[in-house]
Amino acid sequence: MEHVKKYIEENKDRFLEELFKLIRIPSISSETAHKGDMLKTAEYWKDLILQAGADKAEIMATDGNPVVYGEKIIDSKAPTVLIYGHYDVMPVDPLDLWKSPPFEPEIRDGKIFARGADDDKGQAFMHAKAFEFMVQSNTLPCNIKFMIEGEEEIGSVSLGKFCENNRELLKADIILVSDTGMIAPDIPSITTGLRGLSYMEVEVTGPNKDLHSGIFGGAVANPANILAKMIASLTDDNNHITIPGFYDDVEPISDEERAKMAKAPFDLEEYKKALDIKDVCGEKGYNTNERTGIRPSLDVNGIWGGYTGEGAKTVIPSKAYAKISMRLVPNQNHEKINKLFEEYFKSIAPPCVKVKVKALHGGQAYVSPTNIPAYRAAELAFEKVYGKKPIPVRSGGSIPIISTFENILGLKSLLLGFGLESDAIHSPNENYPLEQFVNGIETISYFYMYFAVIMK
Amino acid sequence: MEHVKKYIEENKDRFLEELFKLIRIPSISSETAHKGDMLKTAEYWKDLILQAGADKAEIMATDGNPVVYGEKIIDSKAPTVLIYGHYDVMPVDPLDLWKSPPFEPEIRDGKIFARGADDDKGQAFMHAKAFEFMVQSNTLPCNIKFMIEGEEEIGSVSLGKFCENNRELLKADIILVSDTGMIAPDIPSITTGLRGLSYMEVEVTGPNKDLHSGIFGGAVANPANILAKMIASLTDDNNHITIPGFYDDVEPISDEERAKMAKAPFDLEEYKKALDIKDVCGEKGYNTNERTGIRPSLDVNGIWGGYTGEGAKTVIPSKAYAKISMRLVPNQNHEKINKLFEEYFKSIAPPCVKVKVKALHGGQAYVSPTNIPAYRAAELAFEKVYGKKPIPVRSGGSIPIISTFENILGLKSLLLGFGLESDAIHSPNENYPLEQFVNGIETISYFYMYFAVIMK
Repeated sequence: MEHVKKYIEENKDRFLEELFKLIRIPSISSETAHKGDMLKTAEYWKDLILQAGADKAEIMATDGNPVVYGEKIIDSKAPTVLIYGHYDVMPVDPLDLWKSPPFEPEIRDGKIFARGADDDKGQAFMHAKAFEFMVQSNTLPCNIKFMIEGEEEIGSVSLGKFCENNRELLKADIILVSDTGMIAPDIPSITTGLRGLSYMEVEVTGPNKDLHSGIFGGAVANPANILAKMIASLTDDNNHITIPGFYDDVEPISDEERAKMAKAPFDLEEYKKALDIKDVCGEKGYNTNERTGIRPSLDVNGIWGGYTGEGAKTVIPSKAYAKISMRLVPNQNHEKINKLFEEYFKSIAPPCVKVKVKALHGGQAYVSPTNIPAYRAAELAFEKVYGKKPIPVRSGGSIPIISTFENILGLKSLLLGFGLESDAIHSPNENYPLEQFVNGIETISYFYMYFAVIMK
Repeated sequence: MEHVKKYIEENKDRFLEELFKLIRIPSISSETAHKGDMLKTAEYWKDLILQAGADKAEIMATDGNPVVYGEKIIDSKAPTVLIYGHYDVMPVDPLDLWKSPPFEPEIRDGKIFARGADDDKGQAFMHAKAFEFMVQSNTLPCNIKFMIEGEEEIGSVSLGKFCENNRELLKADIILVSDTGMIAPDIPSITTGLRGLSYMEVEVTGPNKDLHSGIFGGAVANPANILAKMIASLTDDNNHITIPGFYDDVEPISDEERAKMAKAPFDLEEYKKALDIKDVCGEKGYNTNERTGIRPSLDVNGIWGGYTGEGAKTVIPSKAYAKISMRLVPNQNHEKINKLFEEYFKSIAPPCVKVKVKALHGGQAYVSPTNIPAYRAAELAFEKVYGKKPIPVRSGGSIPIISTFENILGLKSLLLGFGLESDAIHSPNENYPLEQFVNGIETISYFYMYFAVIMK
């Protein structure tokens, strides 16, 4: 087992070649033009799992993009780990901000730069390689199942049904997921909570066509002005969300818990410096980690309408649009929030415009327990590789499918992520440090060793 | 002179062929990609003026797109009319809303559909043809000068200097402009006022890169949310503009004047029906015609930021932008308003974002007198062709250069426009009814006759 470091060192160039091949397929799930790339990526994942040493691997159809399933069963009495990851990635725009093309991985300053380098091609790929090492070195102590989906970035829309239809196949003791981050390269942490998500798109229509802003300006409702007013009124001056009932199901956090959270290392000045902001901004009464960890939020993810080209065009647009998403905390139901949003948004529209609201994507928040064998195994694995006990942290992000797994499969998930805040996932110049990649493979390998021991 | 109707009838097909050739050159002045088309259009205009019978025509350089100048001097003692028009057009997006390609003119339902069909290729072209008729029929009673510029849609940025440098060349008794509209095909009107314009672009920057809205949402200022709040606070609940000092120079309108304005025919139900809106929307205390005619306004002409593609992307954008313009009324100085806007917009930005503001375009409002010979001549010309006296109306639109003409050349302008509200200028499916085109040529021809008589 101590050979893992050496094995990675000796095979690193091949590992990177294989990962780069995975990254080069532009598997953007939200864009229909990439439909063909989804299947290509799934096929390549099937090959990766088989080559790593699986007994079998197959591409299984869903109502959407297929799931890659693979397994190696060493002993029906051994504990089983179900690895979950995703092969789809986020869109890449704005393209002009990328220093190298998003689907041409490039190593600079010890980091892999590419869309998916971290989220989640790079992170999921570590599992294939940890698995390969254990098979090659004859040290695999658990049964392993892979479930790699192609719709995580669009809300895992088909995976719930897939799980329902494959309960037997997916039986396991724990789900292992690397799709989150840790505090810093030298501060390991385990994500113990994820926020839920409610992602909406709104359309505000004023006049039935674009109008000349001179001839009509001042007399006809401008949907872009109205949309701005409507968005403005979704939050108050204290950055509380104003949607009636929005906070009803948010569980209060005790002072004790908040005091515990406050112990996680966090440098506000570094945080502001990294983002080049003069000040942070969020809900009154909470600090930065609380604002992302235990409180819901509301963000405009996109807004557009009217003339956005070069120079001046004096137009009153007929329509204006926004994509608005809310991050939710445990106990908030995303479907209820969708409904509350829609009702409120329509209620604040003045009679001179028409409003459409649709939910694009959503999922429940999740809290991961710290008293289960998998958590303890992960703690030990981190200590082995990093020499430090990992810190449990609540992440602001969402992996909506995690709570679905619990509901359908009755399985807890362990969020063993190696991403860093500087990885710029979902952004231009997404990257993944080679150090995280190497340490990740090592930590995952040790996880299995400890997990098998604890489960005995 | 009575032959004008017959002459138009006999030559209509050729007129349209020539106009279509003019329209087919995509002379969008705000897009640098069309730089070459500007010169092509200017060259074609030079040919049109020469062929119509001018003594000379030439393309004169400016700091930007060239001006086409042409003249026919019949008698140094005869009155001189300076025709002003523009050969540049607005951008065409959103392209998918056009029923026929914007630069492929098509006649449907008795209307020419194309970008520039009305504004201002169609309208300016009528002057070339009225001129041609008078030369051909040996009835030209005035000296004629043409000044056709290529930057009207981007604020006539070079024309002021051009006028300063060519004061002698441009000497005239009146400037004649067809770049406005009339109330309805059977209700002629003359535009006696134009609003000024202050057109700004703003950029709001939050974090230095796009961020994952889960990991950072709630803790970092989202520039799209902030921009919405800032735009919302530019107007109050009564649709008054909140920029301090904005109304300081707005001259109050007497009840008498408002009562006079109210006599112009206007059907609110028809207006709402044409735009498919449930209600109009504007400054409290004013009716629709007052809101566009005598009151300033503020419109978002474009807004953009974040992810605007298909599906969901959970991103906090680094930047959000808007194009915001204000229509101004006589006595408001556009440069002062630019400054007030910039100061206020920066003052309402929270410390967690950076804001840039730049002025893109602007000009003063203009009031055209109704007691000058040219106005009287126009009244008679309309009566001759339409059998009705035209109604003086204040337009909400802007032709910023008109007040510059007065300042530099000391000349009043007569706004003899034949556009209709349904012409969709600046919008998809811009059109110009053939009836307006024909009646316009006729009315312009009569204008010269009456103008020469009155000026004697």
